Amino acid sequence: MRSVSVIGIGETKFGKLDSYSLKDLVVEAGNKAIEDCGIDKNTIEALYMSNFNGSYWSTQSHIGPLASEALGLGNIPTLRTEGACASGTLAFRTAWMAVAAGIYDVVLVGGAEKMTHQTTPIITTGLASAADYENEVKVGATFPSLFAMMAQRYFYEYGNVREAMAMCAVQNHDNAYLNPDAQMKKKITVDMVKSGFPVADPLTVFDCSLVSDGAVFIVIAATDVAKQILKTKKRIIEVIGSGHAGDVISLSGKKSITTLGATVKAAEEAYKMANIKPTDVNFAEVHDCFTITQILNVEDLGFFEKGKGGNAVLEGLIARDGKLPINVSGGLKAKGHPIGATGLSMIYEVVTQMRGEAGERQLKNTDIGLTHNLGGSAGTCVINIFKGL
Amino acid sequence: MRSVSVIGIGETKFGKLDSYSLKDLVVEAGNKAIEDCGIDKNTIEALYMSNFNGSYWSTQSHIGPLASEALGLGNIPTLRTEGACASGTLAFRTAWMAVAAGIYDVVLVGGAEKMTHQTTPIITTGLASAADYENEVKVGATFPSLFAMMAQRYFYEYGNVREAMAMCAVQNHDNAYLNPDAQMKKKITVDMVKSGFPVADPLTVFDCSLVSDGAVFIVIAATDVAKQILKTKKRIIEVIGSGHAGDVISLSGKKSITTLGATVKAAEEAYKMANIKPTDVNFAEVHDCFTITQILNVEDLGFFEKGKGGNAVLEGLIARDGKLPINVSGGLKAKGHPIGATGLSMIYEVVTQMRGEAGERQLKNTDIGLTHNLGGSAGTCVINIFKGL
Repeated sequence: MRSVSVIGIGETKFGKLDSYSLKDLVVEAGNKAIEDCGIDKNTIEALYMSNFNGSYWSTQSHIGPLASEALGLGNIPTLRTEGACASGTLAFRTAWMAVAAGIYDVVLVGGAEKMTHQTTPIITTGLASAADYENEVKVGATFPSLFAMMAQRYFYEYGNVREAMAMCAVQNHDNAYLNPDAQMKKKITVDMVKSGFPVADPLTVFDCSLVSDGAVFIVIAATDVAKQILKTKKRIIEVIGSGHAGDVISLSGKKSITTLGATVKAAEEAYKMANIKPTDVNFAEVHDCFTITQILNVEDLGFFEKGKGGNAVLEGLIARDGKLPINVSGGLKAKGHPIGATGLSMIYEVVTQMRGEAGERQLKNTDIGLTHNLGGSAGTCVINIFKGL
Repeated sequence: MRSVSVIGIGETKFGKLDSYSLKDLVVEAGNKAIEDCGIDKNTIEALYMSNFNGSYWSTQSHIGPLASEALGLGNIPTLRTEGACASGTLAFRTAWMAVAAGIYDVVLVGGAEKMTHQTTPIITTGLASAADYENEVKVGATFPSLFAMMAQRYFYEYGNVREAMAMCAVQNHDNAYLNPDAQMKKKITVDMVKSGFPVADPLTVFDCSLVSDGAVFIVIAATDVAKQILKTKKRIIEVIGSGHAGDVISLSGKKSITTLGATVKAAEEAYKMANIKPTDVNFAEVHDCFTITQILNVEDLGFFEKGKGGNAVLEGLIARDGKLPINVSGGLKAKGHPIGATGLSMIYEVVTQMRGEAGERQLKNTDIGLTHNLGGSAGTCVINIFKGL
């Protein structure tokens, strides 16, 4: 398998973008990514698109050729990947495989979602479709209730981390405040989170990620080709590890709902490929669909011992100025969560940091960065590890 | 890249399967495919699932982990591919790439769609989402109208092939009559097709493929591994060629609507990889979403000259006893068209024929078989070429 690198990135702002259709989002982010690396459009051999639920929310499936037409990419092959909130990194991993296998040299990966034009019931129903309809959704489960159960069980097994959950939200809002593309531009406090509008106990509205419009595109290439075609002096960022694992879709079927099997297995694969240990990671973007998830993730990724994630948060270890900054972009919680774009948004942040283009939220130590993207209640997990060349 | 082969196949009947949910379809076809090759479930390293619009029609996205849970496959990685009616062979091609690249040795590919429980407006809207919503659907286009325009333009450029279109339907119904899994068990005549209920001139209801429930699963493996793990004496069927191309999604954006660019480009790629000419193909399953499409396809695949496809049909060349049998399964027209399963259903037929298991519809010469799967109005095309070992 060949080495594969990221050479171009582009994203829209995340938020309530009333004037944008799904296609408009694609056009803006796609063109930005292509311009970012300065390559000729004819160099792009394939397009892997991620979108979660355009079929229901925008009467638009088949986003592959929609995007290739809108971006003027001709007869290139396209496909759409979907794995709930992990759809974006599934597109990335599929593209990585195709380039690593030698089928294509240069591939465009894109993710887009348009959500804010829909009513809350339609958004909630669409999101719930990522759970098991027959066993969970039909009997009333939605994602906040599923993750609230995970939080309650975590409290039972490892002790109450309500304060640390709230602190995750506070820190992610702090980070988003410095991210020009982020949806949330509002600093919050632990008290505001804890006394927020209740959604599913213990989660309040401040523990939940956002409903967002947005798109992110990434250009990848075989590393040896990347060096030849890159028209800018931007740093080439190599994919040094990739892992993909699953788990049963339903909460009731999982061996544990406080240790997410998909994360553990995908991390093992990614670390092995990268030949690194969790302690080698300098910063990460992890899937904070709810604040409890961020705590589970930093444990399942091996950054902290199981049961110690809450303390790590309270000690400031994952804050922007901590030992292992997590979600410096603002995360799903505060940068925003346009489902199909989310996983690629994590990669966008890692590349931006490694290039030293992160402005006010720039980290110092960005040698090795990791992205962790979950789908549903962790039925899917994709992890990628990056290193600048 | 490594050689990859099909070692197991399974499918449900196609039709109006009232007692089956989407998950039930997955379970039946998935278990049949695994039993067909007799491998241990633990051997399966990944699952690539195809589904077109479960999110809208069954409130069920994230079908990857849904299927892996239902089939008892543990923590394996899964993803869903979608490219309209080509979703099935997109899953197959992605799985093929992963095995060819050496990432996995044994992969399960599945496709399922549940349609017949929905109302006609919801099915029509869901299907239309595979076209360009902003430029086509919003102004009233549906797929029958888009393909009717292609037929009208074909008549203008190459002459009227109404009789040959009708004959395609007749032949495909004849073939389906001999396929125990087919939805249609009714022989029809050219006159019945031409005088059928009008849908979009020149298409009548008999020119249109079916609304179906169904699922198909395929087990693939690296060819060297296949020989070691296969527990039955069934013939191993090698993928000798694979091609994937696209085109703009909208009819108005295409260079031609009578020569489908995606087919031409994907065919070129697949023939090149297989190192064969179109005349080397012994039989094929091609995408007959409408009867006119079957005529376009046999021309664009290089089986007949452009403008001569209609005559070829009338001369019986693509009938079951013809020189180049096409859609011996009955095709989308008469076997059925459960969108996400359709592409894999084509592969199911090719493998069944090559194993000599096709019963009353068994062909004699099955050395090289081809599958041709389109998405939307040919915004996506995936072609695979197979040879028995």
